[in-house]
Amino acid sequence: MNSYNPHDVIYALATAWAKSAIAVVRVSGEGCIKALSGAIEGKRDICNLGSNTAYYCHLMDRQSSLEIDDVVLTVFRDGHGYTGEEAVEISCHGGLQIVKDVLAAMENLGFRQALPGEFTMRAFLHGKMDLTRAEAVNELINSRGRTGQTMALNRLNGALFDRINKIKAIIIEIMGIVEVQLDYSEGEIGEDLSFPMDKLDQAISELGRIKDSFRTGKLFGQGARVVLAGPSNAGKSSLFNLFLKEERSIVSSTLGTTRDYIEASCNIGGIPVRLYDTAGFRSLSESEIEEEGIRRSRSLMDAADVIIYMADCTDGSEPDDSVLSDSRCIAVLNKIDLGDVSRPGFIRLSVSTGQGFDELCNAIVAKLTSDVSVPDDSALVIESERQRKDLERAQTALEGARLAVENDLPLDIVSMDIQEALEALGELTGEVTTDDILDQIFGSFCVGK
Amino acid sequence: MNSYNPHDVIYALATAWAKSAIAVVRVSGEGCIKALSGAIEGKRDICNLGSNTAYYCHLMDRQSSLEIDDVVLTVFRDGHGYTGEEAVEISCHGGLQIVKDVLAAMENLGFRQALPGEFTMRAFLHGKMDLTRAEAVNELINSRGRTGQTMALNRLNGALFDRINKIKAIIIEIMGIVEVQLDYSEGEIGEDLSFPMDKLDQAISELGRIKDSFRTGKLFGQGARVVLAGPSNAGKSSLFNLFLKEERSIVSSTLGTTRDYIEASCNIGGIPVRLYDTAGFRSLSESEIEEEGIRRSRSLMDAADVIIYMADCTDGSEPDDSVLSDSRCIAVLNKIDLGDVSRPGFIRLSVSTGQGFDELCNAIVAKLTSDVSVPDDSALVIESERQRKDLERAQTALEGARLAVENDLPLDIVSMDIQEALEALGELTGEVTTDDILDQIFGSFCVGK
Repeated sequence: MNSYNPHDVIYALATAWAKSAIAVVRVSGEGCIKALSGAIEGKRDICNLGSNTAYYCHLMDRQSSLEIDDVVLTVFRDGHGYTGEEAVEISCHGGLQIVKDVLAAMENLGFRQALPGEFTMRAFLHGKMDLTRAEAVNELINSRGRTGQTMALNRLNGALFDRINKIKAIIIEIMGIVEVQLDYSEGEIGEDLSFPMDKLDQAISELGRIKDSFRTGKLFGQGARVVLAGPSNAGKSSLFNLFLKEERSIVSSTLGTTRDYIEASCNIGGIPVRLYDTAGFRSLSESEIEEEGIRRSRSLMDAADVIIYMADCTDGSEPDDSVLSDSRCIAVLNKIDLGDVSRPGFIRLSVSTGQGFDELCNAIVAKLTSDVSVPDDSALVIESERQRKDLERAQTALEGARLAVENDLPLDIVSMDIQEALEALGELTGEVTTDDILDQIFGSFCVGK
Repeated sequence: MNSYNPHDVIYALATAWAKSAIAVVRVSGEGCIKALSGAIEGKRDICNLGSNTAYYCHLMDRQSSLEIDDVVLTVFRDGHGYTGEEAVEISCHGGLQIVKDVLAAMENLGFRQALPGEFTMRAFLHGKMDLTRAEAVNELINSRGRTGQTMALNRLNGALFDRINKIKAIIIEIMGIVEVQLDYSEGEIGEDLSFPMDKLDQAISELGRIKDSFRTGKLFGQGARVVLAGPSNAGKSSLFNLFLKEERSIVSSTLGTTRDYIEASCNIGGIPVRLYDTAGFRSLSESEIEEEGIRRSRSLMDAADVIIYMADCTDGSEPDDSVLSDSRCIAVLNKIDLGDVSRPGFIRLSVSTGQGFDELCNAIVAKLTSDVSVPDDSALVIESERQRKDLERAQTALEGARLAVENDLPLDIVSMDIQEALEALGELTGEVTTDDILDQIFGSFCVGK
C-alpha cells in the first residue's frame, strides 16, 4: 500500500472533466484546512469555521498573488465528512481552465493527487464504512438501472454487512460449543456432545443464498449486451431508436475513428442493456462490408447475452439458420403492418406502429433472467466477484466442518474449518484485510471518490 | 420574460452530464427547503438547519418510498447563497442513473427545470450582482486561458462596475452644472457658464478606452483560430502535436462522423488558440483529397486568424504564393536539422529538435496582437459585444454633447445627449433594463448557472 500513504493531504476533481456551471475539487487529510487558508482571501479565517460550513471566498495563486476563482468551500472537521478526517470541498466555476488552475493550486500547496478510490479508502481506514459499504459506493456510481441502484444502496446502507454479521454470530456460537468440547474431551466428539448441526446448516444455506445472488446482482448492476442482427432494411436501426425512445434511455453512443457499429445504453425491464446495432457498416463500401463487416458483426454476436434476429415479413428470403438455432436468439418478424404474415417461433412486430414491442421486451427480460431470480426492492444481492469468492470460501469451509462432524473426525479439524469460515467473512467486511485486497478493491474506483 | 417566472422553485444539474464521483443539483426559490424536506430522511429536520450548512441524509422517492441516494444537502437561507434567495445544493453520487433519478425527484416535488442562466438571473434580480458581474460569470466559465480568466474575474469582482460608476459620477456632475444653467438662463449657454469640457473629455476618453479593450477581451477570452497549411510530409502533424505538448493544453479533439481535420485547443502566449490541422484528409482516398480536401482546407483558411504555412527545407518545390502573400500568413521552413537551408521571410524550424519553436510562438502572438494591446493582470477589459455597444452609445452621445457645446446649441440639446449617455451606462450595468435584454444575456449561459 505504498501508493496510498494515509498521511498525505490528497486532492482530486470529484466532478466530470467537462465544462459545466460548477466543478467540485475534494481535499482530505490532516492539516488541509490550515494549509488551504494560506491561499484563501475572504472575510473570515477558514481555520475558525465550524464543521459542515459552506463559505464563499477567493482562492488565490500564491506565486502570482492573482485570484484563481471565487469559490465556495465546505469545511469538514475530523469525523464529520465522507473520509472521516479533516476535509474541504471546493466548489468553483466549471470552466476547464479554472478547474486546471484550481488543481494546480492544490499541487502547489503540497497536496498529492488522490489515487482512484482513495477518499473511500480513507473512509474505510477511519472506520466510517466497512468494505461491503465501500464497494457499494463504486457499484452505486456505476449502476445503470434503478434495480441495480437500489441493490447497491441497500449494501451502502449496511444491509449486507448486517446480514453477514448475523451469520457470523451463528458461526461464533457454533465455535463456542466446539471449543468447550475441545477443552473437556481431548478433541473427540463425545457421546454427550450435541453438535448444533441445524445452526451449521442454516449458516451454510444463508451464505449460499447470498452467494448465488451474484448472478442477479451482476445482471442488474453491470447489465447485459443485446445485439441486433438480420438483413439490411429489415428495420434494425428503427428498432434501435425505438428502444432508446421508449425507455427514455441515457444515450451515449461511442464513436471510434472508424465507426463500426452504433452502441447505446438503455433499460429493458429494469435491466441495464448495452444495445448494439451494426447499421454503421453501411458507411463502408460494399466490398468492405463483405470482409470486415461480417467479421465484426460476428464478434459482437459472440459476446452477446441476447441476439435479436430481425426479418422483414415482406421479404421472402430465408433466415440465417445458424443464428436462429442459437439459444440466445430471439427471432422477430418486422413490418407486420404491411403484410399479415407470421412465421413459427417469430415474434410479430411493427416498429412503426409499436405493435409487438412489449412482447419483445418481455421476451428479452425472460431470456436474460431465465437462470437468475428477479429480486424485490429490499432484496440483498451482491455484485462483487470478490465478495462472491469470500462467501464461497466461507460456505465451503462450513461444508467441510459438516463433513468432519458426520465422519466423526477430530474436533480440532472441525474447529479449523469454522475458523476458516470466520476469516473469509472477516475479509469480506474488511475486519481482516491485506494491502493487496485494499489496492485491488479501491483501484477500480473512479478518481475523486 | 414569461419563460423566467421568478416565483417558481427551479432546479438544474450544475455539474457535467457524465459519470463521476459526485454530481451537484442546484435548487433555488422560496419554499424549496420545506418542499424538499418531504423527500428527505435523516437525523434532523432540514427546515431547522442554519444557512450554509452541509447535511448528510437520504433522498427518497416519494411515490415508491424507495431511497434514491445518500446525499449531502447544503442549505442556503434567504440572502446567503448564489441566487440571494432560499436555495439548496444537493451533492449526490455521480452515476448517470442516480443523477437522472435525483432530477426526476425534483420534478415530482413540483420544481421546474431551470433555463440557461436562470440562477445567475435570480442573483441579478435579488441585487446580488449587477449585469457586468452577471455576464462575467459566463465569460469566466467559458474562458480558455489564464489571461481571459483573470480579466473575467476582475469584472466578476466588480472592476468594470466600479469604473463605470466613476465615469457616471463625472457625467452626473456635468449634468448638474448644465441643469443649474438651464434653470437660470432660459436654455442658452451664458457667458458666465464655464462648461466643464475637461471633465466631458475625460469621460469620453475613458469610455473609449474601455470600449476599445473589446478586441483584446475577445482575443484573450474567446481566442483565435490558427490553421496549419502546406504540402504533405512537411511535418504539420508533428508541429500540431508539439503545440499541444509544449503548452500542456486542454486537448479536446472534435471527431465528426466524417473526420475532415484535426482540431484541438491550446494556449499560445496566454491566448487561447483553436488549432486546425488538415492531416485527417489523409484518411480519404487520393481522388477525394483532390476535390473535397482542397475545398475544406480553403474554408478553414478563410476563417483563420493566422495561417502557418509549413515548407520542408529538404524539398525543392515552390511554395504556394497565394497563401504566402496573405497578411495572416507566417511562413515556416521545417526540418532544418536535416539541411542548413534558409529562405527569405521563412522562420527556420526543426519540429524534432524544437529549434525555432519559441520564435514561431512569438511570431504568432505578434501577429494576433498587432492591433490590440496586451493587457497586464489588473487591466480592465471587456469581452461582451453588448457592453461594447452600450459604451459606444454613451461615448457617441457625449461626443454629441461636446459638439453641441462647441456650436453654442441650446443647453437642452446638450442635456438630452448627456441623459442618453447615462441611460446607456444604466443599461450596461442593469439599473435600467428590459426583459429582452435579460433574455438575451442569460439565454447564452449554460444550464445550472
